[in-house]
Amino acid sequence: MKRTQLFTKTSKTAPADEVARNAQLLIRAGFIHKEMAGAYAFLPLGLRVIEKIKNIVREEMNAIGGQETMMTALQPRELFERTNRWDDAVVDNWFKTELKSGVKLGLGLTHEEPFTISVGEYAQSYKDFPLFVYQIASKFRNELRAKSGILRCREFLMKDMYSFARSQTEHDELYEQAAAAYTRVYDRLGIGDITFRTKADGGYFTENYSDEYQTLSLIGEDTLFHVPGTDKWFNQEVAPSQAPLLDNQDKEEKPLENVEGEGVIGVNALAKMLGITPEQTTKTMLYVTDSGEVVAAAVRGGYDINEIKLRKVLNVKSLKLADEETVRKVTGAEIGYAGLLNLPKEVRVIVDESCANRTNFEMGGNQTNLHAMNVNWGRDLPSPEKFFDIKTAKEGDLDPETGQIYEVERSIEAGNIFPLESKYTDALDVYYTDEKGERQSIIMGCYGIGISRVMGIIAEVFADDRGLVWPKSVAPFQVYLINIGDDEEVLREATAIYKDLQVNGAEVIWDDRPEARPGEKFADADLMGIPWRVVVSAKTLNKNGFELKARASDETLDVGPRELILKILGQEFTDENVDKLKFVR
Amino acid sequence: MKRTQLFTKTSKTAPADEVARNAQLLIRAGFIHKEMAGAYAFLPLGLRVIEKIKNIVREEMNAIGGQETMMTALQPRELFERTNRWDDAVVDNWFKTELKSGVKLGLGLTHEEPFTISVGEYAQSYKDFPLFVYQIASKFRNELRAKSGILRCREFLMKDMYSFARSQTEHDELYEQAAAAYTRVYDRLGIGDITFRTKADGGYFTENYSDEYQTLSLIGEDTLFHVPGTDKWFNQEVAPSQAPLLDNQDKEEKPLENVEGEGVIGVNALAKMLGITPEQTTKTMLYVTDSGEVVAAAVRGGYDINEIKLRKVLNVKSLKLADEETVRKVTGAEIGYAGLLNLPKEVRVIVDESCANRTNFEMGGNQTNLHAMNVNWGRDLPSPEKFFDIKTAKEGDLDPETGQIYEVERSIEAGNIFPLESKYTDALDVYYTDEKGERQSIIMGCYGIGISRVMGIIAEVFADDRGLVWPKSVAPFQVYLINIGDDEEVLREATAIYKDLQVNGAEVIWDDRPEARPGEKFADADLMGIPWRVVVSAKTLNKNGFELKARASDETLDVGPRELILKILGQEFTDENVDKLKFVR
Repeated sequence: MKRTQLFTKTSKTAPADEVARNAQLLIRAGFIHKEMAGAYAFLPLGLRVIEKIKNIVREEMNAIGGQETMMTALQPRELFERTNRWDDAVVDNWFKTELKSGVKLGLGLTHEEPFTISVGEYAQSYKDFPLFVYQIASKFRNELRAKSGILRCREFLMKDMYSFARSQTEHDELYEQAAAAYTRVYDRLGIGDITFRTKADGGYFTENYSDEYQTLSLIGEDTLFHVPGTDKWFNQEVAPSQAPLLDNQDKEEKPLENVEGEGVIGVNALAKMLGITPEQTTKTMLYVTDSGEVVAAAVRGGYDINEIKLRKVLNVKSLKLADEETVRKVTGAEIGYAGLLNLPKEVRVIVDESCANRTNFEMGGNQTNLHAMNVNWGRDLPSPEKFFDIKTAKEGDLDPETGQIYEVERSIEAGNIFPLESKYTDALDVYYTDEKGERQSIIMGCYGIGISRVMGIIAEVFADDRGLVWPKSVAPFQVYLINIGDDEEVLREATAIYKDLQVNGAEVIWDDRPEARPGEKFADADLMGIPWRVVVSAKTLNKNGFELKARASDETLDVGPRELILKILGQEFTDENVDKLKFVR
Repeated sequence: MKRTQLFTKTSKTAPADEVARNAQLLIRAGFIHKEMAGAYAFLPLGLRVIEKIKNIVREEMNAIGGQETMMTALQPRELFERTNRWDDAVVDNWFKTELKSGVKLGLGLTHEEPFTISVGEYAQSYKDFPLFVYQIASKFRNELRAKSGILRCREFLMKDMYSFARSQTEHDELYEQAAAAYTRVYDRLGIGDITFRTKADGGYFTENYSDEYQTLSLIGEDTLFHVPGTDKWFNQEVAPSQAPLLDNQDKEEKPLENVEGEGVIGVNALAKMLGITPEQTTKTMLYVTDSGEVVAAAVRGGYDINEIKLRKVLNVKSLKLADEETVRKVTGAEIGYAGLLNLPKEVRVIVDESCANRTNFEMGGNQTNLHAMNVNWGRDLPSPEKFFDIKTAKEGDLDPETGQIYEVERSIEAGNIFPLESKYTDALDVYYTDEKGERQSIIMGCYGIGISRVMGIIAEVFADDRGLVWPKSVAPFQVYLINIGDDEEVLREATAIYKDLQVNGAEVIWDDRPEARPGEKFADADLMGIPWRVVVSAKTLNKNGFELKARASDETLDVGPRELILKILGQEFTDENVDKLKFVR
């Protein structure tokens, strides 16, 4: 395509209200247009990237037997009521609308329900399974804030696939097939070596983890814990953690002591006041489970209690922090002074392993303004039968399995895969009949890749101070062709190489703007992030013909047309390859 | 693809609540799934048709320089307030929703506004024009009723293109380029010879017509008037009409007479009561224009007044029927007895040409229950200086230009193109600067094709009593391959021809279901409407190898593999063509 046929232009500045680097660059380069916070239009260059990402994802989903469909954005209330996902109190990011008749509708934020219904209408016998069904379509999520450019939008393009299996074993096989397809997708997108399959929370209805595909990035919202030298990556929310052993413990137990300290907030302030290290303090929090049981959970100072882990230890679906009244009733003190000493017997106590192996530690005194000092297991309170891991991992923690210290990285989620067990199929009365004619549950999985989000990630992680840098597989064009000057020979050679590149399968955008200065053309080639830049000028024609430069490199090459085309096609400069080239000239 | 890999199945019956034939067949064949009235999911077979239609449309839009983009479905209120299209009283089929903050949003029902804004951000100089910009995306329209299957949906896929020109002349050129592209689209979709460019209303803000592309169909919602032997087609709403001359008029004028007739409703009842033909009666209606002028419009009995034509005659943007009070004030009578006799001078009178050349005609008496009989122009009321065409054309009418009697056809709208003048660009303050540095208006056009609607039209117009019949260009597969029996030789030959067809570029679905009877396979091939059916059985292997049949024909051919493949590719059975075939076997 010729640049003069493109209606967008580049800009030196981004809108003042655009804080995310991906959106700033994509707007400046004319790839996207901000319609409102969290909703972006894709302009011709941007849509070309989107289509390339879609095609890579589509090919890999098809390769494992994925059947492509297109569900509707408008979704009926009744369907989501059956799975208890309609209520705004349960799912808090619905966009709702209504028919003229007043019937309420939602805008699809995820499509487990309609896929389950559609599949259930056709697949009822064991012979009809297993299945992968997917779509690539717009999703709508009413996010409270939308400040991450195209990384987190209110309207965005997503590939969502769903698997339907006859057993957990069959599900596990499908799940790993999909995982392998995901790895191929990220490899082909050019982010394979910085994107890692990461264990994450599986949600409240399952004991299982989900898997996230996390791309390393300093601006990421997620924190990953990696076991060095392995492919074990954990999202911080579920990373198993072992606290580093404390090497400064007293040999002798000191007498228990109560210290007054009113309104001391934060572990560091408390430690300072008491003249101890933060690690000698204890954080105790009271929770109430869905069955009404009160739980006291304790971690060593400096850690946070991880409710996902605590939920799994307690084997409950949900829990919440105890309210003021419960705290007062159980501890006899205001909030902020809870400890494990003298708790009523009916309170269940869960202590993190970071609290073991300490001597003379601090703990809330279960009396307003009171802190217990020099507490010791066995002497002042019974040593727990078992210590658990209920803390959120932090830098410096060890992987309990290998004892290695975690590497900690920031990352952006580029996709996720999720075991759904039979939550949706059972709720929607979709079953299959087995060989014996008996009704069986269908085990589902879901597999998401945010197409527009992945575009944002690629923009974000590869950009440099000159602009975007696209991997070849998703670049809107492979070649940015620049003519310097417009004398006859230059234009003739530019025209010839423009056609020659196209006839050999390379996508070229020719910056043919007569009024643009060479510097503007060079800057635009860089800002748009096109993998190859080709220059034709009187100067290059006096050498081999063309100057070739890769966007990601500073090296320029003087090349003739054959070498140029082969380089761009990624082929060796051999007689055999030269013979296969086509030339319009 | 193998049939056993497809999750959908066919059905002998359609859902009871589905009244449209297109949807009944598409559901029975497993192409679509009804999510709710007016919203259908596209299943794998249906999506393949959609993608083929999209690609044809995309190629033709690109061929005239169309630049593809993707706007958002979420649209901000302020934008549509600037063009006065936000208010539900003005645009009555919005779906509205809102952000968490309470900010109201609409779901895009058309995209003139965001396209104008996007283009205006980049194109500001005369050098940046002309432009064609488009998208293929879901539209949302809150239709009161949705009973036409995928012909009229609340959520549907549409290609909408917009042109931006520097002058009316340049606009006219773009408009005709787009019109030519539309003709190529319908030709390639296989409905070119039953789809006609038709003049239709251009909307209230322009004197111009719009152009609709109407596909002939007995179930169509539109009525077309065609001048025989020409390419002149009019939508009934704008068809110029000349009433057939009445040949039964009295030679002598009879005396004016008043006849009482209380509550006679309808022209036929009135004529019967008065003992005259309906053509001797006159229908007079009172209107009030946007400037407050009262207009009396009259047509001959049996016609309806056409408000689009009347608006153009009066050169006003809008008019409405006079309310009861106005009627009473102007005529002195209740509604139903208006005529042209003795009207106040300030009432403007517009008389249709069907009222000329009559003697002794009837007219409302402008007195409750009174009908004036034997009215004559010149004697009882002044003969109008000019008779107009303000009636809705009906069967039997003549084209005023050629005097030919119209052919009247039913049709479905398959697309439309629309001159927008500078309505949106002016309203959104989007202008360009001309060579002299002066600000100029931008002339817009818009060009729509409902992608899913066109799929419905094709389904509707070609279907027969056995099911769908797809043109080759949009069929989900070219070939439906059937093996009868599963003995080794049959399966080997089926596998071979399955691969051979694919390697030569034909899309094949192989009905490899082991449990399906031959009759089921034949019925499904027909129901799904795949253009070619190929059968392999012990019987066909004893002849030339395969039996070939076109969906649209009853003839079967016994053919060998080479002839089979060439037929399906649409090539002659010549040595040269045979030499080019590839064979896996």
